[in-house]
Amino acid sequence: MDNIQLSGKIKKIKLVILDVDGVLTDGRIIYDSKGRDSKFFDVHDGLGVYLLGQAGIKTILLTAKGSGTLKHRAKDMRVEEIYADAVPKTSALDKIVKKYSVSDIEICFVGDDLVDLSVMKRVGLPIAVANACDEVKEIAAYVTKKQGGRGAVREAAELILKSQGKWEIALKIFNK
Amino acid sequence: MDNIQLSGKIKKIKLVILDVDGVLTDGRIIYDSKGRDSKFFDVHDGLGVYLLGQAGIKTILLTAKGSGTLKHRAKDMRVEEIYADAVPKTSALDKIVKKYSVSDIEICFVGDDLVDLSVMKRVGLPIAVANACDEVKEIAAYVTKKQGGRGAVREAAELILKSQGKWEIALKIFNK
Amino acid sequence: MDNIQLSGKIKKIKLVILDVDGVLTDGRIIYDSKGRDSKFFDVHDGLGVYLLGQAGIKTILLTAKGSGTLKHRAKDMRVEEIYADAVPKTSALDKIVKKYSVSDIEICFVGDDLVDLSVMKRVGLPIAVANACDEVKEIAAYVTKKQGGRGAVREAAELILKSQGKWEIALKIFNK
Amino acid sequence: MDNIQLSGKIKKIKLVILDVDGVLTDGRIIYDSKGRDSKFFDVHDGLGVYLLGQAGIKTILLTAKGSGTLKHRAKDMRVEEIYADAVPKTSALDKIVKKYSVSDIEICFVGDDLVDLSVMKRVGLPIAVANACDEVKEIAAYVTKKQGGRGAVREAAELILKSQGKWEIALKIFNK
Repeated sequence: MDNIQLSGKIKKIKLVILDVDGVLTDGRIIYDSKGRDSKFFDVHDGLGVYLLGQAGIKTILLTAKGSGTLKHRAKDMRVEEIYADAVPKTSALDKIVKKYSVSDIEICFVGDDLVDLSVMKRVGLPIAVANACDEVKEIAAYVTKKQGGRGAVREAAELILKSQGKWEIALKIFNK
Repeated sequence: MDNIQLSGKIKKIKLVILDVDGVLTDGRIIYDSKGRDSKFFDVHDGLGVYLLGQAGIKTILLTAKGSGTLKHRAKDMRVEEIYADAVPKTSALDKIVKKYSVSDIEICFVGDDLVDLSVMKRVGLPIAVANACDEVKEIAAYVTKKQGGRGAVREAAELILKSQGKWEIALKIFNK
Repeated sequence: MDNIQLSGKIKKIKLVILDVDGVLTDGRIIYDSKGRDSKFFDVHDGLGVYLLGQAGIKTILLTAKGSGTLKHRAKDMRVEEIYADAVPKTSALDKIVKKYSVSDIEICFVGDDLVDLSVMKRVGLPIAVANACDEVKEIAAYVTKKQGGRGAVREAAELILKSQGKWEIALKIFNK
Repeated sequence: MDNIQLSGKIKKIKLVILDVDGVLTDGRIIYDSKGRDSKFFDVHDGLGVYLLGQAGIKTILLTAKGSGTLKHRAKDMRVEEIYADAVPKTSALDKIVKKYSVSDIEICFVGDDLVDLSVMKRVGLPIAVANACDEVKEIAAYVTKKQGGRGAVREAAELILKSQGKWEIALKIFNK
């Protein structure tokens, strides 16, 4: 895909949907001896979601897993909503399209693994993180340079805001 | 070992046995001030074990250490069984061979350290992870490109499924 | 900026202010299933802050986030004071300048992200960590080779102490 | 130092003393919101200490910090003894020399930071980990290729056992 084609896709984006494990995290799950799990998130990604929100683009989390650890991070990141235990993910996508009155072509989805394929084939801007599996990278319109959980979501947010000419406006709040 | 020889070994595999520390984890153990330990697992590896199961290949965990933290992760990964505190590991291998009615040659074992040597010398497909010690790599039929706890088990699962012609079938569930 | 110019700026430094996430940590936040967060700090950085203190240079932490996890680490590192929930950060800078009777030009600030820009534009020695975003690196007088949470603060401390001719004195305590 | 000189030093070693943070760990300390700290240890290092023990070489931990988190890991690794809160470290070294009836020249010490300098100058085999600060590397007889907390101690153990001709004997237990 050339840059003009990519830029055209990005300009249409009104909503961002993020997979969680491997995208907002680096794919690792910490288990302790009592069976509780913990996950790594990245503070730079959090600012990316915040900047999207400032520019009027909502962020939604979509995962095939549960929302236990996730809901706390989601609250701190001020994401719009979480769709957890979503199997297949396309059912949740149908609900999102209806609820937020957007069409597939206006959605950016960031994914990393096979379970993301069905959604990525439908949305207007499918993005794969650097650590995504080959099948996911192949159908992505853009592959991030940064790893999931290490800035990939921030990179995606900046890509969208810059292509839409909203980056400078978003930055203004930091230059007061 | 050439590719044809390796492919021949893989085609016979009916059961996968995984060491835990250094294979399903990156070898790190987190200790807190109360002595509780935690370990890092990888969500991509989990999907690898799931895909093996879909193709009729069971996965068993075999560790010389205890099963405290492990049993919770094992449940989430839907592995068949855990053999913990297994010293020497070959005794557990004897039990597995009997219980699952498989022969050594039909077993793949993934290991990383000296304690895995005795089992690796017996099974049909001994795999070493990228971070394995030299002695383990030397007797392995295949050394993964990915590190333990960072996709090595997923890589092993894909290797087996692709060589056995089961990869495309496994992928079908993600393309509905 | 050439080395003489940089050296001139460093010689004036009497106080060091550190951002926290991404500077004293690698930017990752661990969430567990109960919503508690943990962060990674680096023992080498701790010794850097200690050496600054031995040379009469106080260290202050300045973050836009809360001080929950931070206050425990700060105590162990013997930093002078924490300014948490500081939005915008320049308001806290005003308080610090007044309380410690220093001028902007006598302050070193180490930052990594957009929220640090306003403070970095004011202080005499703005330092960016290796993992800082581009906008922060561009206005920094010095960019550390080490990553935040992996020695960047230690590197900054050594830079200041060596330029001020205080490094050898600081080392004396380890050669008894 | 040439290999013959190094080999001569290693052959004399009867006791190994390890610094903890940055040597048995990667130098990171995890703080949670309640102020509890956790640390990363490496399972491969644990086997290194075990192999030293099998060959009659005891391992002692020596840290300027407290023993909270450490004592649990030390127990699992079967180290001989912990000297915590040891400032300066040479005082603890004096006690160790007396208690274990060894001379300085028969001791290997593995360190990473400035607080280790005084001990490293005295012992027969001072080893620096790959992530040690420059001052420590400069006075080391050997610098490990592996990082602290990621196999550096295992590498040091193998170096000693191989130079002393005890490696093959140690391996025998894994080839039964």
